[in-house]
Amino acid sequence: MAEDRYQKGLEKIKELTSADDENPTGFMDIGERFADIAPDLTKYVVEFAFGDIYARPGLDNKQKVLTTITALVAQGKPQIEMHIKTGLSVGLTPNEIVGCIMHLIPYTGFPSVLNALTAAKKVFAEQGVSVTPTEES
Amino acid sequence: MAEDRYQKGLEKIKELTSADDENPTGFMDIGERFADIAPDLTKYVVEFAFGDIYARPGLDNKQKVLTTITALVAQGKPQIEMHIKTGLSVGLTPNEIVGCIMHLIPYTGFPSVLNALTAAKKVFAEQGVSVTPTEES
Amino acid sequence: MAEDRYQKGLEKIKELTSADDENPTGFMDIGERFADIAPDLTKYVVEFAFGDIYARPGLDNKQKVLTTITALVAQGKPQIEMHIKTGLSVGLTPNEIVGCIMHLIPYTGFPSVLNALTAAKKVFAEQGVSVTPTEES
Amino acid sequence: MAEDRYQKGLEKIKELTSADDENPTGFMDIGERFADIAPDLTKYVVEFAFGDIYARPGLDNKQKVLTTITALVAQGKPQIEMHIKTGLSVGLTPNEIVGCIMHLIPYTGFPSVLNALTAAKKVFAEQGVSVTPTEES
Amino acid sequence: MAEDRYQKGLEKIKELTSADDENPTGFMDIGERFADIAPDLTKYVVEFAFGDIYARPGLDNKQKVLTTITALVAQGKPQIEMHIKTGLSVGLTPNEIVGCIMHLIPYTGFPSVLNALTAAKKVFAEQGVSVTPTEES
Amino acid sequence: MAEDRYQKGLEKIKELTSADDENPTGFMDIGERFADIAPDLTKYVVEFAFGDIYARPGLDNKQKVLTTITALVAQGKPQIEMHIKTGLSVGLTPNEIVGCIMHLIPYTGFPSVLNALTAAKKVFAEQGVSVTPTEES
Repeated sequence: MAEDRYQKGLEKIKELTSADDENPTGFMDIGERFADIAPDLTKYVVEFAFGDIYARPGLDNKQKVLTTITALVAQGKPQIEMHIKTGLSVGLTPNEIVGCIMHLIPYTGFPSVLNALTAAKKVFAEQGVSVTPTEES
Repeated sequence: MAEDRYQKGLEKIKELTSADDENPTGFMDIGERFADIAPDLTKYVVEFAFGDIYARPGLDNKQKVLTTITALVAQGKPQIEMHIKTGLSVGLTPNEIVGCIMHLIPYTGFPSVLNALTAAKKVFAEQGVSVTPTEES
Repeated sequence: MAEDRYQKGLEKIKELTSADDENPTGFMDIGERFADIAPDLTKYVVEFAFGDIYARPGLDNKQKVLTTITALVAQGKPQIEMHIKTGLSVGLTPNEIVGCIMHLIPYTGFPSVLNALTAAKKVFAEQGVSVTPTEES
Repeated sequence: MAEDRYQKGLEKIKELTSADDENPTGFMDIGERFADIAPDLTKYVVEFAFGDIYARPGLDNKQKVLTTITALVAQGKPQIEMHIKTGLSVGLTPNEIVGCIMHLIPYTGFPSVLNALTAAKKVFAEQGVSVTPTEES
Repeated sequence: MAEDRYQKGLEKIKELTSADDENPTGFMDIGERFADIAPDLTKYVVEFAFGDIYARPGLDNKQKVLTTITALVAQGKPQIEMHIKTGLSVGLTPNEIVGCIMHLIPYTGFPSVLNALTAAKKVFAEQGVSVTPTEES
Repeated sequence: MAEDRYQKGLEKIKELTSADDENPTGFMDIGERFADIAPDLTKYVVEFAFGDIYARPGLDNKQKVLTTITALVAQGKPQIEMHIKTGLSVGLTPNEIVGCIMHLIPYTGFPSVLNALTAAKKVFAEQGVSVTPTEES
């Protein structure tokens, strides 16, 4: 059963990152580099964060990643880069990702948004994603 | 033109709150109670937050409110109640709202989530919304 | 196995709260009041927060609760009251709890500390705990 | 010398609160209600916060209180009420206090500002202060 | 009218940064590097943050920048460097800027203050500003 | 008497860092690099943070550093590295330090914990500390 949760988490990560069988966790940081000091961390990341929470019903993957990106903008965490990658991977358009960050100006203020756009721009460049901003209505 | 932005903001608020012509800003707090000390506040809320930002293209209304709710969970702000109401008004299901809050456990921790669920439960009760949680997959 | 984690979590809670068999989760808030809107929340609290994390080796219970209280002071969360109760239950002295809060002045500033002391004083009064502050060395 | 710092702190508080000899700490919360659990707290508040920091050269009292109010808006702390009182006491006009809070919209977002204006309005009412907002230039 | 707000914002920035006609936005980051992904960002920065908020009456420019620097210390945002430059440009003395940062010790704790002083020291060195700390009274 | 507090603070720092007489403040950052812009900062760090607060009774040194590390994880401050060094110096085992950071997952979320483990791993490597994680019970 615990193995089930780990397996379920790995499959969720594979789904989120469009990973293949050779590198099944894709670009997702599951904390394996801490195996020497906190060998149970990866288990919690995979089983709990992905096997339990990301696998919950209620939101689709796009909504889940949008929610994740928003939380990381509000907290100013560097993990936002990885989750912008995940957003692209699950099918959020660059416009939706930028739209989410821009929407936060009245809630988190401009500095948080500028820092998040820097991360977005970097990821878009790395991924070779070209952005065609929607015309303002 | 400034009048246009104010008008555009009011229409956005009306759309978000399903308000009618008699009470065009619905349940949205646009800060009118501060007219005596900060008479320009309501202008900024309506023109900037709603006329500029909420009216941006890129995200649909459901995504915009999901993003707003997430930011308010991460920051622990009491405005979350009003925006959960907005969520219901634009068509987010109670399951989507709860799903958004629950999804944040690995990012904001349990206490923020418990406090947000308290707000959600209160709003659902006030609005007479019955919740049928999706079965876990 | 999942049942094992749930059972392990419940036993940890019982240990932390000195609960008896009639009310095995004692005064710990495990989110049961959200069963109607988020029926899986209690499972995550019991299995993950208590069955996985609180059950980890490395720190003893006193250290775990000290760490929890500190995080809640830094974040300004109302859950601090419940965890001050837990602190007393696992054997932290009132002086240690106050010592922890006072130690944070140079890191979180005075307002956070004043708010946390208000919570501590309330819990000490409810529990009938008398405090004999250690003389300053 | 330590007595000097305490005395210096008390005089600073008297100056900030326009207190008289009968109630020399005026409306300032120096934490005396925690004498039973943290008897050294008041000493740190008076000696360090007021005797050392508030007594520093570099800023005048108006600037010091403006800085304090801003920090409390950014952090969402309830102590903002007391420091708005202090602001009025050292000669900040209600317009300056509101101006400070409103100026923060692009940095902290609207919800923090709305919550701070609620505190300002309450204090202005309690103090019978009438506000004549400056015309927008 | 919208053009008016943009123009008003640009003039405010010119005033704040002592910019000349060749580089009218001076050293202020108005987000132009995001024109490819968020082409409306610069408009919001110039029109709203500077044309609306910085142009409000109530505080003078020195007070506005003092308030901005304080918010950025409390939030730990890297934009503090740019706003320390703005502070010098509008006539805040290095002592006032340091005084503001030091005043925050009792509210944000030492680590936030040390990080802000690192930014201040860097800007002072870049600008060739020599600091003569006021003697303690 | 003030000299006493400074001396008391220096001795506390020496005790915390296992410093010798040649470099009595060891690896502790007491802000001496800001002597040119904020000459009184080091006095406040030594006298107040160490002479007053770290010298308080109530907690032993291990508990004090555990509390400090926790606050810095919750706030995401870079000073965590220095205080992990202090933790090792006062006798916290690497397992206790990792245990404290891992314990925070349910309170601060995974990203804060991953960032803190990165700091811990760096310090452990610099100090040549080998970690033998306790087996999970």
